[in-house]
Amino acid sequence: MLQSHPQASENLTVISEALHALALCEQVCLTCADACLAEESPETLRTCIRQDLDCAAICAATASLLVRRTSSGAAVLHAQLHACVLACQTCADVCSAHATHHEHCAVCARTCRSCQEKCNAALGEFSPAGLVQDEE
Amino acid sequence: MLQSHPQASENLTVISEALHALALCEQVCLTCADACLAEESPETLRTCIRQDLDCAAICAATASLLVRRTSSGAAVLHAQLHACVLACQTCADVCSAHATHHEHCAVCARTCRSCQEKCNAALGEFSPAGLVQDEE
Amino acid sequence: MLQSHPQASENLTVISEALHALALCEQVCLTCADACLAEESPETLRTCIRQDLDCAAICAATASLLVRRTSSGAAVLHAQLHACVLACQTCADVCSAHATHHEHCAVCARTCRSCQEKCNAALGEFSPAGLVQDEE
Amino acid sequence: MLQSHPQASENLTVISEALHALALCEQVCLTCADACLAEESPETLRTCIRQDLDCAAICAATASLLVRRTSSGAAVLHAQLHACVLACQTCADVCSAHATHHEHCAVCARTCRSCQEKCNAALGEFSPAGLVQDEE
Repeated sequence: MLQSHPQASENLTVISEALHALALCEQVCLTCADACLAEESPETLRTCIRQDLDCAAICAATASLLVRRTSSGAAVLHAQLHACVLACQTCADVCSAHATHHEHCAVCARTCRSCQEKCNAALGEFSPAGLVQDEE
Repeated sequence: MLQSHPQASENLTVISEALHALALCEQVCLTCADACLAEESPETLRTCIRQDLDCAAICAATASLLVRRTSSGAAVLHAQLHACVLACQTCADVCSAHATHHEHCAVCARTCRSCQEKCNAALGEFSPAGLVQDEE
Repeated sequence: MLQSHPQASENLTVISEALHALALCEQVCLTCADACLAEESPETLRTCIRQDLDCAAICAATASLLVRRTSSGAAVLHAQLHACVLACQTCADVCSAHATHHEHCAVCARTCRSCQEKCNAALGEFSPAGLVQDEE
Repeated sequence: MLQSHPQASENLTVISEALHALALCEQVCLTCADACLAEESPETLRTCIRQDLDCAAICAATASLLVRRTSSGAAVLHAQLHACVLACQTCADVCSAHATHHEHCAVCARTCRSCQEKCNAALGEFSPAGLVQDEE
């Protein structure tokens, strides 16, 4: 799909893997948040639920920027990918602490860790050069 | 991942396939919208771009409801899945009309059609019964 | 802002009021979900939290469709507004049941009720006619 | 609404103003993107449309994190607010260049600039301290 874009030129494997990881991470985080809420004592999982929801929201925004990368300001995309790497890392850390009690947290931690790596790789693709200007 | 949820009980294959199709459809629609915009004459693709963006927004919302289905009001989930089926169908129709000129529209049409089918199958899983009430 | 759109022609007061109500309802629902989670016994508020999150997701999608209404398929916009009316009504009902215990649920119920009314009014603006076709 | 949250304690005026600015900026950016697409020569507005859509996506994610700030990792919230400030600044710059031709770009530039300021103010509220840990 990405190759059919008229302006695409970067390392599409890296972009494609990051997009796939972001979509998966968003859904897994939403699922983990809802599963945490369904556990017997959700009051012990507040931070986990919030990090899950935060990470899902950030993954969604980051993916949409990555799709529109051809004339995005590299500075904005850089900053968003950086926020996403932090969100995935934080969510993975928080979920890891519950991984032995809850299988959904174990899966979520692994998924976040993988997404963090793919977003880090994508970060390497974008130099902080300026954005394409419209000519009207 | 879905099996680790404490309240999950439905046909998880149908749910899982719908969730996967929704995540893919959202990203493909966003990509098609951006690729249409990058074409030489985007003014001939306005409806296609808008349907792509609409379909992406609806797929995102529908997936998040499907994740939280265990105590969602069945009526709301039904209505949202119905809107999603219509959005996928409409977007597939609009993209099909450009499929011979633009490969991204051809891919998007196929992806929307598949998502439409998976959401239709998910619709069959939810009876319009009432929602689980909180007891405080 | 809406009047500066080259293709705008409908009753912009109705559209504008619905867009404002949707933005407010999304944030209030997200806030109510997080406040419910912060209460002493969040396990008694599971359905409320889920309805809040569902309603927020649906409001976000509905607003974005309403912005792009000029060539949206009327059938899709109709179906999405209908899902949104149901989501607001359901969330208002669920929050109302907790309104005496939690001020955030009382505010959320009123906000959802208002959004439901504005979306119902917007529904009346769109006849189920066909969508604008691209000519390529 | 914010005062009804059991864990709220920060400068709620700053938070509330940022949340309001983010909701407005998201809708104005989506509207500007669609209005640009409706102009006679959308191929001259590609970067503007993409920045609008990027800024809208980032505003949405940032608002949802700001709502859940009580146990969010301050580092993630910081990074997301920073990305949002950059996105608003970039979108304001891009829209300013079209402000004399298109009223929607003029409104969007002002709205983004205001959102940038409110998010900058919110940034000042959060020290980069650690996040609240769950105790299970």
